[in-house]
Amino acid sequence: MPSISTKGRNMPPSPIRKLVPFAEAAKKRGVHVIHLNIGQPDIATPEVALDAMHKLDRKVIEYSHSAGFESYRKGLAEYYAQHGITVTHEEIIVTTGGSEALLFGMMACFEPGDEIIIPEPYYANYNSFAMAAGVKVVPVRCSISDGFALPPIAAFEALITPRTKGILICNPGNPTGYLYSRKELETLRDIVKAHDLYLFADEVYREFCYDGATPVSAMTLEGIEQNTILVDSVSKRYSMCGARVGAFITHNKELLGAVLKFAQARLSPPTFGQIASEAALRTPQSYFHAVIDEYKQRRDILVDGLNTIPGVTCPKPKGAFYCVAELPIDDSDAFCQWLLESFSHEGHTVMMAPATGFYADPATGRKQVRLAYVLEQEQLRLAVSCLRLALEQYPGTVRKPVQAASASR
Amino acid sequence: MPSISTKGRNMPPSPIRKLVPFAEAAKKRGVHVIHLNIGQPDIATPEVALDAMHKLDRKVIEYSHSAGFESYRKGLAEYYAQHGITVTHEEIIVTTGGSEALLFGMMACFEPGDEIIIPEPYYANYNSFAMAAGVKVVPVRCSISDGFALPPIAAFEALITPRTKGILICNPGNPTGYLYSRKELETLRDIVKAHDLYLFADEVYREFCYDGATPVSAMTLEGIEQNTILVDSVSKRYSMCGARVGAFITHNKELLGAVLKFAQARLSPPTFGQIASEAALRTPQSYFHAVIDEYKQRRDILVDGLNTIPGVTCPKPKGAFYCVAELPIDDSDAFCQWLLESFSHEGHTVMMAPATGFYADPATGRKQVRLAYVLEQEQLRLAVSCLRLALEQYPGTVRKPVQAASASR
Repeated sequence: MPSISTKGRNMPPSPIRKLVPFAEAAKKRGVHVIHLNIGQPDIATPEVALDAMHKLDRKVIEYSHSAGFESYRKGLAEYYAQHGITVTHEEIIVTTGGSEALLFGMMACFEPGDEIIIPEPYYANYNSFAMAAGVKVVPVRCSISDGFALPPIAAFEALITPRTKGILICNPGNPTGYLYSRKELETLRDIVKAHDLYLFADEVYREFCYDGATPVSAMTLEGIEQNTILVDSVSKRYSMCGARVGAFITHNKELLGAVLKFAQARLSPPTFGQIASEAALRTPQSYFHAVIDEYKQRRDILVDGLNTIPGVTCPKPKGAFYCVAELPIDDSDAFCQWLLESFSHEGHTVMMAPATGFYADPATGRKQVRLAYVLEQEQLRLAVSCLRLALEQYPGTVRKPVQAASASR
Repeated sequence: MPSISTKGRNMPPSPIRKLVPFAEAAKKRGVHVIHLNIGQPDIATPEVALDAMHKLDRKVIEYSHSAGFESYRKGLAEYYAQHGITVTHEEIIVTTGGSEALLFGMMACFEPGDEIIIPEPYYANYNSFAMAAGVKVVPVRCSISDGFALPPIAAFEALITPRTKGILICNPGNPTGYLYSRKELETLRDIVKAHDLYLFADEVYREFCYDGATPVSAMTLEGIEQNTILVDSVSKRYSMCGARVGAFITHNKELLGAVLKFAQARLSPPTFGQIASEAALRTPQSYFHAVIDEYKQRRDILVDGLNTIPGVTCPKPKGAFYCVAELPIDDSDAFCQWLLESFSHEGHTVMMAPATGFYADPATGRKQVRLAYVLEQEQLRLAVSCLRLALEQYPGTVRKPVQAASASR
């Protein structure tokens, strides 16, 4: 039997999805699993997008241009203009989700062995795209004690080597929900400019900011126009994760040309998803007002609830729909698995993503979990109740003597 | 400005799409371009698939399982059983087109620097996926003189080195339309077995076989069950190229596990496309009978027509909907560009894919072009008329003294 490649062996399983078999087993036992592990909102997709499918009048579902429908790209350029981002449709390559934009971008920008600095904890799948491109992720540590703010410039400078070729940020952040200020972004701009790095800015949660906060796009940073790459997606904006439509955006024409060749190889982004995404550009503002208000309430219920549990710390984020909580436990992988295998409260349990997958060194995330507040408020209240009780019962809770929990991994 | 990666620079532009700007310019001049360059059929997508979109009753367009909807995978397993291919739904990973199946498969199977043997001419984008995975393509030459049959086993043996890790075939073939016999496939099986290679079989044109020929799947070859990978796609089968739904299929559980990690990183294949593809499984056989009959007539019109042009050779293929023709020209890139820039016949011209992009060494394909017979019969007759006249007028036709055509590249 021929062997699996090094990449194939080393590619990390998704920390968001690796516990799925345990969740499936729990469901088979009749336990209701509250899914806070994945950023799959229950929010309805805008009617205009679904209507575009209902009224689809094409006879042949053809490939689109490799960069996406021109009409959709022109619509996107207008959408960005409304958000203070100036781009032309020729600076946009429509991708199969933000995932593909990251993969193509890393392959077009970096040599195998190049290093990319990412504030951690970071979206776990960045590891996967980096591994596919042969790029080394160099984490710069953010601390839960200051809500995962950007580390000082000196922390970045200390990590820069001759192989450093880029910085990747997610703003608002997955998994922390942290929203970078303009000042923080200008710090990043200065580092990017000083070392002529690429700046990848994953801004797919742009719409979801709370408490009057407004997001600042990396595309508005002056002096690094040829260095900045905006990664975007319709997945969260329109609660349309399954459309698999994203975008790779830059003013750098040479880079656009290189990424287009990767895009040509896979022929086109999804046609159905593009039709729905183009229609979704007409989503009324009232939709976003309602959704943002709902997420804010969910955040408050979940985060405030978590902070009432003894030993739990959870900063209140200003964006996205995730939070990272520190728990009084021995091991988040073991705890999350135990919740699915050995715990239930009135027939319910909670599924979370162990934060071990969100740090370059899994050990750093051993006491943390990521929770996505993508479910109804009642579910979130129930989740908090479950967690409160679970932490009382879990054998690996640190107030009690540590038992065989770590051996059960 | 930071630099583009070596991969980004070396990634080949699509030979199928690289002339698009010249086609767009021709259209702006009012010339009607007959698109034989790309396998984008004008055949209607099955009603059942479009109806599934019209009747879509989901409120949220969610991610699917990273391996695709279980119900769709079960339906696919039944479809394969009807085609003599025995697989379970757990041996199927739904991908974003056949393209992604090839990319993930190459990354999971091969180390950078490994070699993969591909009978040439071959689908140009194999170069791109190989480059993305860092794999070296080693071509084994097929000859137009015997209709692009599989070369003898000795030709393969001569190319095998310690770095050879796989063989990739397309059957029925793009660009040649060649359909491998069971005997030819057993020859391949013997090489694969003797050297413990992976065998990638791209069988996306399975339905399109003519003159009573039936396709033989690599999945039916005995003794290499752990080596064989079936790459599939709904793009051509249901004339639904834009759905971007394919499949990675193997009995090799370790490999499935590795590919699933790549699949998890990109979260899920397109949900809309999967819904349409699952519905398309109910496409009536009468649809395929009509489509195959239509393609056969188109093939006969195009191939028979081409062979009446002085100096043109075109084997009549038994499968897919492409043919490769040898033309009495200096340079197929120059000729195809000239057709768009400098030629028209009663307001029409023809766009073809220069075969230079379908050979590892472009020089080998300098006198050949690929034509896709994906348009109505009248268009194909018109295309033959255009080509007959064009070859009389083109300055680089070899019956005439070669002029400055090559300089115009």
